[in-house]
Amino acid sequence: MQVPDLDFLFYPRSVAVIGASNVPGKVGNAIMRSITLKFDGKVYAVNVRGGEIEVNGKRFKAYRSILDVPDEVDVAVIAVPARFVPDVIDECGEKGVKGAVVISAGFKEAGRVDLEEELVRRARKWNIRLVGPNCLGVTNLENGFDCNFNPPERQARPLAGKIAFMSQSGAFGAAILDWASSHGIGMSKFISLGNMADLDESDFMAYLSHDEKTEVITGYIEGVKDGRKFFNVAREVTPSKPVVILKAGRTEAGARAASSHTGSLAGSYRIYEAAFEQSGVLSASSMRQLFNYAKALAMQKPAGGAKVAIVTNGGGAGVMMSDGLLERGMELAELDKETMEKFARAIREGHLPEHMSYRNPVDVIGDAPSSRYEVAMRYALEDPNVDTLVVIALFQSPALDDGIVDAMVRMRAYNKPMVFVAPGGEFPERMARRIEREAGVPVYETVEDGVDAVYALVKYGEWLRDNGKL
Amino acid sequence: MQVPDLDFLFYPRSVAVIGASNVPGKVGNAIMRSITLKFDGKVYAVNVRGGEIEVNGKRFKAYRSILDVPDEVDVAVIAVPARFVPDVIDECGEKGVKGAVVISAGFKEAGRVDLEEELVRRARKWNIRLVGPNCLGVTNLENGFDCNFNPPERQARPLAGKIAFMSQSGAFGAAILDWASSHGIGMSKFISLGNMADLDESDFMAYLSHDEKTEVITGYIEGVKDGRKFFNVAREVTPSKPVVILKAGRTEAGARAASSHTGSLAGSYRIYEAAFEQSGVLSASSMRQLFNYAKALAMQKPAGGAKVAIVTNGGGAGVMMSDGLLERGMELAELDKETMEKFARAIREGHLPEHMSYRNPVDVIGDAPSSRYEVAMRYALEDPNVDTLVVIALFQSPALDDGIVDAMVRMRAYNKPMVFVAPGGEFPERMARRIEREAGVPVYETVEDGVDAVYALVKYGEWLRDNGKL
Repeated sequence: MQVPDLDFLFYPRSVAVIGASNVPGKVGNAIMRSITLKFDGKVYAVNVRGGEIEVNGKRFKAYRSILDVPDEVDVAVIAVPARFVPDVIDECGEKGVKGAVVISAGFKEAGRVDLEEELVRRARKWNIRLVGPNCLGVTNLENGFDCNFNPPERQARPLAGKIAFMSQSGAFGAAILDWASSHGIGMSKFISLGNMADLDESDFMAYLSHDEKTEVITGYIEGVKDGRKFFNVAREVTPSKPVVILKAGRTEAGARAASSHTGSLAGSYRIYEAAFEQSGVLSASSMRQLFNYAKALAMQKPAGGAKVAIVTNGGGAGVMMSDGLLERGMELAELDKETMEKFARAIREGHLPEHMSYRNPVDVIGDAPSSRYEVAMRYALEDPNVDTLVVIALFQSPALDDGIVDAMVRMRAYNKPMVFVAPGGEFPERMARRIEREAGVPVYETVEDGVDAVYALVKYGEWLRDNGKL
Repeated sequence: MQVPDLDFLFYPRSVAVIGASNVPGKVGNAIMRSITLKFDGKVYAVNVRGGEIEVNGKRFKAYRSILDVPDEVDVAVIAVPARFVPDVIDECGEKGVKGAVVISAGFKEAGRVDLEEELVRRARKWNIRLVGPNCLGVTNLENGFDCNFNPPERQARPLAGKIAFMSQSGAFGAAILDWASSHGIGMSKFISLGNMADLDESDFMAYLSHDEKTEVITGYIEGVKDGRKFFNVAREVTPSKPVVILKAGRTEAGARAASSHTGSLAGSYRIYEAAFEQSGVLSASSMRQLFNYAKALAMQKPAGGAKVAIVTNGGGAGVMMSDGLLERGMELAELDKETMEKFARAIREGHLPEHMSYRNPVDVIGDAPSSRYEVAMRYALEDPNVDTLVVIALFQSPALDDGIVDAMVRMRAYNKPMVFVAPGGEFPERMARRIEREAGVPVYETVEDGVDAVYALVKYGEWLRDNGKL
């Protein structure tokens, strides 16, 4: 696998925005706003008309050409009409630019294959790597380098985190960033792939596999650019870092829509499915599932097997979780004889209530305080038949105190993967944030989301074992 | 179908809380808090020890027996230890009480079948209808009659709306109320079914079918009490009001868990599936899906057929929606020749952009303002091949203005069902609330939720046609 060195793209020391504009609402203005909000590198504005640009309370001289910029430039973000882009690339080349993020549309997607080919020819000549064209650029949540022209009041940026996300659809990618932000999902890097005239999903997958800030690689893909390359890269990456892909264009109608959207030959989904399976790529069927998988993989270690224990204060949620796990190919752990005896003894001695059920699911009943949860969780985690623990907490019961947060912290000592489910509104959400932050255990809003999480941990664990990595 | 007259249960003029307590944290105190917060009927506290109870800034004399209450009592809410309940029922009978909501646990679910049978015997003697025992009671969101002992700071109550929800699991039902509240889902009535010693899910289904405030009947069920009765009632109800059931205990492990939880003989899910199918009950497989279905059915009329048109400003979301619809058995409408000509003309005349795709999905492109949406939506809705319109709006694009709300209001004139999808964070959520309130069109957070919504409208429409009702 060739791992392209793309650090300059995500950690540029200096950036030129070509097509920068002082007119609010223009793409070149929006990019300047995004790029100067948090990024700590140097930013230069370029506009053929010259003048001055004021954004975020800062003033920037607009250079008529990148060649006039009195500094080295690592990356050029280009937002000029498509027909000018090839010449702009030549100037970038002369300037010694290493990477160009081409936001401009009007290339292959608009029937101008010729212009896109010309763009690539010029870039190759100067050894410039290209993102796009026709994209939202890249966003590095770590240093605030953000070319995305959607304004923050319309599209929030997620917090810095461990999930990298690449998207073949800019608009949908933006919606996902906004969604991720409001759901507390942290991201390392976002890449809007655009037309992939040069750099494609496999290049970024390879790069991200060596990126320390990224622990899970995710992507929205309509069609990969080079199937063989994708397969080979994925095959090398997945034994050390999980890859989760949402492949759209799975049905005939979807594939037809994809072909008018990105020109992707979506191909038979069967082939993709087989390729994903054989290269250890987890395939998600929806946006929510993509991030259910990714969050679990980013926060917990993969499962040592498919056997799951459930501890819940609500019988109904335990039933639903049992259904969900079995329907997705997992098993309920059969608790060890010794574990059963521990439960029976604790009940006899009054530490646990008489009418609780301790066959898996373990139902600590509606009036359980966190201390009762802790006993049950310990017994479950100590059981050699249990690979993964699912904790369901219906915080609507006032008996359940916030000691559950510290209890979850203590459960980490067992070194088994854990998933927490807390359905409801404000209070559970507050608890969820604390459990995620303090105990590092991923919390999900619904039983079905929790099932996704367990599935990802089990499935990726199997892949690692198949590859001798676990 | 026998339709029990249960109005007294949801609209009591006067209520006695037996086991009312002045001690915060006690169930009998929590019920007093809930019941006196918004309910406008008369509330009397009963406690063998007498005394006084102060909740929500109001004082209540505690009568030693319901017989001492100087007024008629329609409903008794009972929260005394199980062994006292039968005698309490006798007193209620003497008092002329019509319905008893037995919150107390310690009956069949705790191995005391005998006590539960005794309870039913006494109630029958006095002609008292029972909810429970072992339940969270009923909540009428219309008049604030609310026996639920979970405090509002832990479990929010949803706004008044058109969806009735009954739950065989109290704790999970509470979590759903909390969740529904934070997701803006309105409810008419909530019933925690408990052990269903007397009134069961079929009785309430029959009652709710005649309840003017309820437009969709939903339920969480582990096992129905009387399969034949359920089938017959459902068969009569569904041709006039949709019923959506989340059946848990679908798998072997789930069924086993259900049997320790509610003692339900969950039975083979195959049999349930067939019964649901033949009685027109929509079967949901998750909490989110239950409410995706219910919200669509509560807000839109059923679809006249399975052919769907999609209008989107993001190609990727259109691809995903196409996949989702086809995977669930729907079709993308093939747009009429005339419609295609209208699009072509509008593009020629500059009303629509050159590079948009107007094969279904209709992609109005990322820079679409609401006016462009409106043109495309009109063309789609005017097309005789289109049964349902799905509108996807990626509000991350600043070009999309809030004129879309009024546009949706105008689209109602076409009298075809519509579903709106707006993924993302705060801004889309604000728009969503407005579109739901002002245009009555249900808005969903993800493509997959929107697919659920269309599925419910199509499936229920089919059922109505099969029954000669559409």
